Amino acid sequence: MVETMQHWLDKQADLSPNRIAIEQPNRESVTFSQLRDKAKSFARKLASQGVKSGNHIAIYATNSIEMITAIHSLSYIGAIAVLLNTRLSNTEVAFQLKDANVSLVLSSENLLEKASLIENSGTSVKSFEQINKLAELDTELKREICLEDLCTIIYTSGTTGLPKGVQHSYGNHWWSAISSALNLGLSDNDRWLVALPLFHVGGLSILMKSIIYGMPVYLLEKFDVDQVHHGIVERNVTIVSVVSIMLVRLIEKLGVQTYPKTLRCMLLGGGPASKSLLEQAKSHGIPVFQTYGMTETSSQIATLSPKDALTRLGSAGKALFPAQLKIVNNAQVSPVNEIGEIFVKGLMVTSGYLNNDKADKMAFQNGWLATGDLGYLDDEGFLYVMDRRKDLIISGGENIYPAEVESVLDSIQGVAEAGVIGSEDDRWGQIPIAFIVKNKKSLDEKEIVDYCLQHLAKFKVPKRVYFVDALPRNASNKLVRHKLINLLPTE
Amino acid sequence: MVETMQHWLDKQADLSPNRIAIEQPNRESVTFSQLRDKAKSFARKLASQGVKSGNHIAIYATNSIEMITAIHSLSYIGAIAVLLNTRLSNTEVAFQLKDANVSLVLSSENLLEKASLIENSGTSVKSFEQINKLAELDTELKREICLEDLCTIIYTSGTTGLPKGVQHSYGNHWWSAISSALNLGLSDNDRWLVALPLFHVGGLSILMKSIIYGMPVYLLEKFDVDQVHHGIVERNVTIVSVVSIMLVRLIEKLGVQTYPKTLRCMLLGGGPASKSLLEQAKSHGIPVFQTYGMTETSSQIATLSPKDALTRLGSAGKALFPAQLKIVNNAQVSPVNEIGEIFVKGLMVTSGYLNNDKADKMAFQNGWLATGDLGYLDDEGFLYVMDRRKDLIISGGENIYPAEVESVLDSIQGVAEAGVIGSEDDRWGQIPIAFIVKNKKSLDEKEIVDYCLQHLAKFKVPKRVYFVDALPRNASNKLVRHKLINLLPTE
Repeated sequence: MVETMQHWLDKQADLSPNRIAIEQPNRESVTFSQLRDKAKSFARKLASQGVKSGNHIAIYATNSIEMITAIHSLSYIGAIAVLLNTRLSNTEVAFQLKDANVSLVLSSENLLEKASLIENSGTSVKSFEQINKLAELDTELKREICLEDLCTIIYTSGTTGLPKGVQHSYGNHWWSAISSALNLGLSDNDRWLVALPLFHVGGLSILMKSIIYGMPVYLLEKFDVDQVHHGIVERNVTIVSVVSIMLVRLIEKLGVQTYPKTLRCMLLGGGPASKSLLEQAKSHGIPVFQTYGMTETSSQIATLSPKDALTRLGSAGKALFPAQLKIVNNAQVSPVNEIGEIFVKGLMVTSGYLNNDKADKMAFQNGWLATGDLGYLDDEGFLYVMDRRKDLIISGGENIYPAEVESVLDSIQGVAEAGVIGSEDDRWGQIPIAFIVKNKKSLDEKEIVDYCLQHLAKFKVPKRVYFVDALPRNASNKLVRHKLINLLPTE
Repeated sequence: MVETMQHWLDKQADLSPNRIAIEQPNRESVTFSQLRDKAKSFARKLASQGVKSGNHIAIYATNSIEMITAIHSLSYIGAIAVLLNTRLSNTEVAFQLKDANVSLVLSSENLLEKASLIENSGTSVKSFEQINKLAELDTELKREICLEDLCTIIYTSGTTGLPKGVQHSYGNHWWSAISSALNLGLSDNDRWLVALPLFHVGGLSILMKSIIYGMPVYLLEKFDVDQVHHGIVERNVTIVSVVSIMLVRLIEKLGVQTYPKTLRCMLLGGGPASKSLLEQAKSHGIPVFQTYGMTETSSQIATLSPKDALTRLGSAGKALFPAQLKIVNNAQVSPVNEIGEIFVKGLMVTSGYLNNDKADKMAFQNGWLATGDLGYLDDEGFLYVMDRRKDLIISGGENIYPAEVESVLDSIQGVAEAGVIGSEDDRWGQIPIAFIVKNKKSLDEKEIVDYCLQHLAKFKVPKRVYFVDALPRNASNKLVRHKLINLLPTE
């Protein structure tokens, strides 16, 4: 059966025309009917540039109403939004544009200069403002959404080092939004603060919830501890999505104060949180709900529910209602309390990677996604995530795959071998550090870092470089990353 | 894509094992894990009787935990529940059993005697208690639900007089539950009172919501004004589904009292309500949300939302988020404020009637269901229902099709012609009354009523019979029902 619905933004504008859709500090708010009008107008202007259904259009922007408008406008055309991480290097962006066959990059004004460097790779770049100056083409826009149609593509790094385009259908986003509502409940008073970048699925998913629930979003350009604090204390925000480092800073800012009762949920994702951080939050009365999810699951797929939040500290909860979860060890489902690989299943899970059969084959088994993450279920079915994907480094909520950094290091003249691991860091959770065997005496740390800065997003660049004689390798000569830690100089 | 989920009751029992699933006055409550255990046990006992996936099993019962257990147990087997209206005559029930190819009728204890009369039609009847005494068969039960699979069948009378089996897939029930949550919101404190019979979709849909939301149901065997009042005032019920006559009686009972703030929604369905009733409710501070729906839409498809309830008295609101609605006149979409036939579309709408291509062809047009009901949309998209399906009589929330009653009347010896309409009634909304042209002098009202009582549910039996000389007919000799009213004796 083809599952269709009225276009979500049209529908919400019909249901709640005058309700606030987006509120921002120091900018005028936008209602659902205004957002619909903006998005449709933008769509007709894009159409005048030849943008058509099925086209892949990249968005390269910091959080703003214009970015949200652009994302929704593409759905009116039936074009697919490829959301680019603005922290990536030009080389990384160029790879994604080519891999996703992007025909146009839409950029926010403040990034246009940076974006124009992308243009050298051959893809046309236009700012939101440039599009807005165009005349509208009188063209038929989509009135209905088909749930199985492709909506967005977001790249995620793989263990092999080459990023993979995660495809989200409208249905994936729909089921993600509904799953979250079934867990957190849904109130007319809800206002969800977005400080996560909208190019990550954690941020994007809140936009989808906004138009599906009819819920105002309190939008920040980026995480700013004072603005988030203000939103919670003064602007009646009820839900905030954060990663660990944001929570750390909010607690610092909070001091001996407590948040008002209006804050009902601080949704904590983007990697494991330390027990001490969770306990600190608890002692401050912050309603932290730990979550587990990834780009492939269109945001959270397991979350600690309100009723269990206080008694199950450290758990990411149970799989959301429409989702399933199992722990697998040697192709067998693991017994209770035994660590194994986390497998997930559900209608919010991507149906596959863009043009990447190999990655699909590795990831999917009988409708289940093998996440590569390690964890266990306790005797009541609560999930405890032990380690994110093998060797994955999570720094301030961003994923870093050692293999990707190593392959850049390997390409530096003078580097014979390179190994990268994460090192604990109070501020960022983890930071990447590198171990290098060099074959050119003069090579120094600065040279290495400079080269990396040209080819990698800044957050992926090793924060410390150690020159060593040899890397630990196993019998088949494979790098044994977990032994790298032993090479650290003892001080 | 095949859309599967973990079995809903298993899932909710995993998520909220100790939460109350069903509460009843003067009976012990049942938690979700207990309900799951009961339903699985009952399923294994049914399996011992040869009940298999795909079988059509009728339920003939008054509201009870046993009835709920039986309904859920069938989903563990993959059998389809045919929900019988216990108010129907044996002839009517026999038709449905045959039409739906029912292999077994499950009856509540209190109806077993009545049900055993059904057995004469050749279908085996067992009470819940009889099944409960059996040993369990060790058989594999369903772990997953496939949304496109058939879940329930509920008969609805058609304009032609012959009832049609409305097929509800799991997906229909799912989308109905989600649609309602998106409109009414979802709170951890919710407790939904069920006084409607569970064999109607309005009652059944609350069971589905219960296991999908993890929400306790406050179950009454039948509508009892004192018990409903008690539930609202003493037992923290937050939502109640009612039909007009129930609301009338609740307001009488309420007197000068008001309900506690815990009652957040009185969902009013089952036919149009008079403006004076709605105003009375408003003056008592009762949060009435008028709805529009039918068996084919798996309960409400349009509902006045909380934010519009007070300003749009008399409207049934807007189509729920995943639903669409249009008004059609002469095959054209009607302009604003113009009355036409109501068409609906959405994933909660049945995909068709059981083995009834003719009815399907009449009802469905390009994915839209032609409801036969008349109404209009105002300039802001609010639906006003003017008349339910052509000539439909709604009495105490039960549908009565004149054609069905007329065809029984026509079969009485001595009746030459018969016409049936609804007459306004303070208590029931409407009651059926009959106009008869007789060709046997001795025929009297008692004879007619007695005959009807044998062949029709009591609520369908004409409450008054008028003997007339001729019925109003049009040029093609078709009965013109709306002119029957002119034949009423003037007093």
